[in-house]
Amino acid sequence: MFVEVVAIGDEILSGNTVNTNAAFISHHLTRHGWKVTRHTCLSDTKETLAKELKIIIDRAHIVIMTGGLGPTEDDITRNALETLFQSPSAYNGKVAQEIEKRFGKELSSLNNVATIPCKATPLINPIGTAPGLLFHEQNCIVIALPGVPQEMQALFIDQVLPYLHKTIPPKSPLLYAYRNLCLLTEDAVDPLIRTWKQKDPSVSVGIYPHYGFLQLSLSSRNQNALDAFAAHIDTTFPTHLFQNSLEQAIHNICIDKKHSLALAESCTGGEIAASLIKIPGSSAYFLGSLVVYSNILKEKLIDVPSLTIAHHGAVSAETACAMLEGLFTKTPADYGIAVTGIAGPDGGSKEKPVGTVWIAIGKRGAPCHTGKILVKGATREKVILYAKNSALAHLYRLLRYNITPF
Amino acid sequence: MFVEVVAIGDEILSGNTVNTNAAFISHHLTRHGWKVTRHTCLSDTKETLAKELKIIIDRAHIVIMTGGLGPTEDDITRNALETLFQSPSAYNGKVAQEIEKRFGKELSSLNNVATIPCKATPLINPIGTAPGLLFHEQNCIVIALPGVPQEMQALFIDQVLPYLHKTIPPKSPLLYAYRNLCLLTEDAVDPLIRTWKQKDPSVSVGIYPHYGFLQLSLSSRNQNALDAFAAHIDTTFPTHLFQNSLEQAIHNICIDKKHSLALAESCTGGEIAASLIKIPGSSAYFLGSLVVYSNILKEKLIDVPSLTIAHHGAVSAETACAMLEGLFTKTPADYGIAVTGIAGPDGGSKEKPVGTVWIAIGKRGAPCHTGKILVKGATREKVILYAKNSALAHLYRLLRYNITPF
Repeated sequence: MFVEVVAIGDEILSGNTVNTNAAFISHHLTRHGWKVTRHTCLSDTKETLAKELKIIIDRAHIVIMTGGLGPTEDDITRNALETLFQSPSAYNGKVAQEIEKRFGKELSSLNNVATIPCKATPLINPIGTAPGLLFHEQNCIVIALPGVPQEMQALFIDQVLPYLHKTIPPKSPLLYAYRNLCLLTEDAVDPLIRTWKQKDPSVSVGIYPHYGFLQLSLSSRNQNALDAFAAHIDTTFPTHLFQNSLEQAIHNICIDKKHSLALAESCTGGEIAASLIKIPGSSAYFLGSLVVYSNILKEKLIDVPSLTIAHHGAVSAETACAMLEGLFTKTPADYGIAVTGIAGPDGGSKEKPVGTVWIAIGKRGAPCHTGKILVKGATREKVILYAKNSALAHLYRLLRYNITPF
Repeated sequence: MFVEVVAIGDEILSGNTVNTNAAFISHHLTRHGWKVTRHTCLSDTKETLAKELKIIIDRAHIVIMTGGLGPTEDDITRNALETLFQSPSAYNGKVAQEIEKRFGKELSSLNNVATIPCKATPLINPIGTAPGLLFHEQNCIVIALPGVPQEMQALFIDQVLPYLHKTIPPKSPLLYAYRNLCLLTEDAVDPLIRTWKQKDPSVSVGIYPHYGFLQLSLSSRNQNALDAFAAHIDTTFPTHLFQNSLEQAIHNICIDKKHSLALAESCTGGEIAASLIKIPGSSAYFLGSLVVYSNILKEKLIDVPSLTIAHHGAVSAETACAMLEGLFTKTPADYGIAVTGIAGPDGGSKEKPVGTVWIAIGKRGAPCHTGKILVKGATREKVILYAKNSALAHLYRLLRYNITPF
């Protein structure tokens, strides 16, 4: 079965807008058992759109389109669908009534958005004005949705998914399992995956490296094979596994065990704190972060001795440890992380190249653990993300498995 | 001329990954004068990939591909290109040498990533290992890049764009101008744009609202018309204009005028600091941020009186001002921002709903200026970004035009 997601719009082709609609639709279709076979984005140029859509519709069984349906968008998509399905548009009283209910009779675009191709079933838009349009012709279901993400999402979840389940349910769907592994490289995991795959080729595996962790996506049509493969991973790398995200894993453990956490960040510049507080409810365990970006704040705010910086440098085990000690003095946190490094592009030396980061992690009253990471091929962003994820991964393994960092 | 951007990968088709690469490539191609005519995302299934790519390559003049080039098992772009261009792969000593320089001889995937189709010109990857592959055959240039955004971006900017300019320069290009306007809404700008457009319909205008600022994208084939339109904007909203980003604008002014800056962040949780230090060289003016997420750190670290919090609440003009005063006591900063708000989803009340944020901005020794923003339809992420951009915009206008915040 061919399932295609098609976006219409020059704002996407010009790079002004990221096509998050395709990701949203694909994510939900995949979870519900359909396999998306292609994404396409086409220009909202009248001449070619109907022709290009015809090729897609002749090939596919389900086509979900987004964009070009709003009242200011020159009706490009609607016109193309009229041509494609030989279905002229007419004013639809029921649609008009629904829109009037929420936006009033004075809506200037009412006539426009209530005029739809006569062969289309309208999908009433619960947020905006323009309805979605559903065509079920011959062997293909074509559903056109507005491009505004909130409107598209509401229509897709509440109306499109139920319709597809009823009309063209997925057959023997591809099943998915996901695993996240921290502090492991692709090189360490890939050979094992290859060995296991030789034993069971029915499972497909995608390895997606992030800075400091890997995401593994497993898929199979056989639940037992999928479970067995996932169990291989779980038993081989038990203490590297985490659910959702490192931030969520730490969030859950800290709240569960009533630990509080504070940070002293230099090169990460607040990035670790900002990533932790993205999760609602983080104030239950997260006290805050001292972003001591400059040496003067390292000294004034968390009492790093100026001699330590002078003798060992701001990027050193000694400074990282002093930052952590100062953090425990200045805040009542149970656990702490201190990070100091050279994010670049300048500031590196032969002994301490760009990408050198010292991390200190510890529990109040317990020894300070320090470790160095050296981010190779480092850009500024990469060093910051690597430092963040490494620090969080080591803290997670300490909290969860009592594994000494570094 | 047909210019197509093609992503290879089931992680995109399954909705696991948003195809930001297509947006990045399209944005830069568009700004440099090429019009992108289509985006496609194809499955990394061996059987169909070469066949589908052939259709695209027969149609297009420039094809930029991303994904499927890394050393792991699910990377099959290279195989498809071998078939497509009848170009078997061979070990490339020069590529191997370049990779060894940065990653050492011990890299287990060295042989794999240094083996490339013999008709391809390798584009050395300055960040990761796998090189980009450039084919110039018959009437089509095909360039395959790794899917990791940082690697793709570096290769695209430094090697692909210069190659395209030299080999297949854009003809009679659409010219672009961009304007960023802070602290203005679409409603305030759109009617004026429409009026100006009636006078000169040769200019197209896209208005892209972000949280706290707008991006305007103007395009025309006529440089004079474009300049005149941009001048309308510049003279109508002179003190709302900023270049690149608010972070970059503040960075430049502070370094130029030798101002130092520090922050006290509560609800933004380090996001403002993290966004400022993304720009290399920010240590020249940015001292740091006290992320006093909990009330206890507001009291202990920057001396916010507990009575102020008890009487007025942590989210109040009084607390924001006390945070700013504490910041000036604890750090030697010339300028400061303090932010405290309710990011939600919980913690709101009738008087102070989710989305309420108090910001204090000031100069050492000068009065503290406070203002409230209320972010409507607020998600946690939206409140944090709105607070960040509003605070930065007010500071920018204070620094640049001496405009009193709020």
